[in-house]
Amino acid sequence: MTVASATMRLHAMDAWVGDGDVLVDAERLRAILVEAARAGRVTVLEDAFHVFPNGAVTGVLLLAQSHLSIHTWPELAMANVDLLTYGDVDADAVLDVVRTRLGITRSTVSCLVRAGG
Amino acid sequence: MTVASATMRLHAMDAWVGDGDVLVDAERLRAILVEAARAGRVTVLEDAFHVFPNGAVTGVLLLAQSHLSIHTWPELAMANVDLLTYGDVDADAVLDVVRTRLGITRSTVSCLVRAGG
Repeated sequence: MTVASATMRLHAMDAWVGDGDVLVDAERLRAILVEAARAGRVTVLEDAFHVFPNGAVTGVLLLAQSHLSIHTWPELAMANVDLLTYGDVDADAVLDVVRTRLGITRSTVSCLVRAGG
Repeated sequence: MTVASATMRLHAMDAWVGDGDVLVDAERLRAILVEAARAGRVTVLEDAFHVFPNGAVTGVLLLAQSHLSIHTWPELAMANVDLLTYGDVDADAVLDVVRTRLGITRSTVSCLVRAGG
């Protein structure tokens, strides 16, 4: 573990997709987040997902290294993805898998350094 | 709903407490987050909590307006609290309840405007 990787960081991504079908498929979104977590060496502990009447999905994976969440906006073909991590985690790999598997055409990412161990 | 309140916002709070006992009490933390959500006119849909071997707690409330999460660091007497919200939500009220009920002595809050409906 490098000193840099031991810092608590929040990565906040807003992302637009080419095909919005994935944004209303909770099971597919769950599989994508789990795959992304594994790519980043993140350990998934539990998850919770909720589907709204319009098909929008809110989902969170609880991680040994904090959390990975998604909130989809099917009507806007976009999603908010938040990754809060600490330790020996490859956050870029996590977000890369999310981008690829969601078919993201454009995204913005803000990174906040947080207090933590 | 005002135009300002209809914006998607992430509030990221790092907070230090005077008495660390609350940071290892998952049920109390869950009750505090639910009380905070209600104070901010936020609707709680589901929750997921995990307790680590050292007593640290990771917990997330799924909200009709996105999510409210906490990650505690008992060994540092601190916690990371993230509130992602959209719509007619009083985020200050949410964070004020968290501050009061956790007995927070010092905190920093970053606010990120996010893309969304």
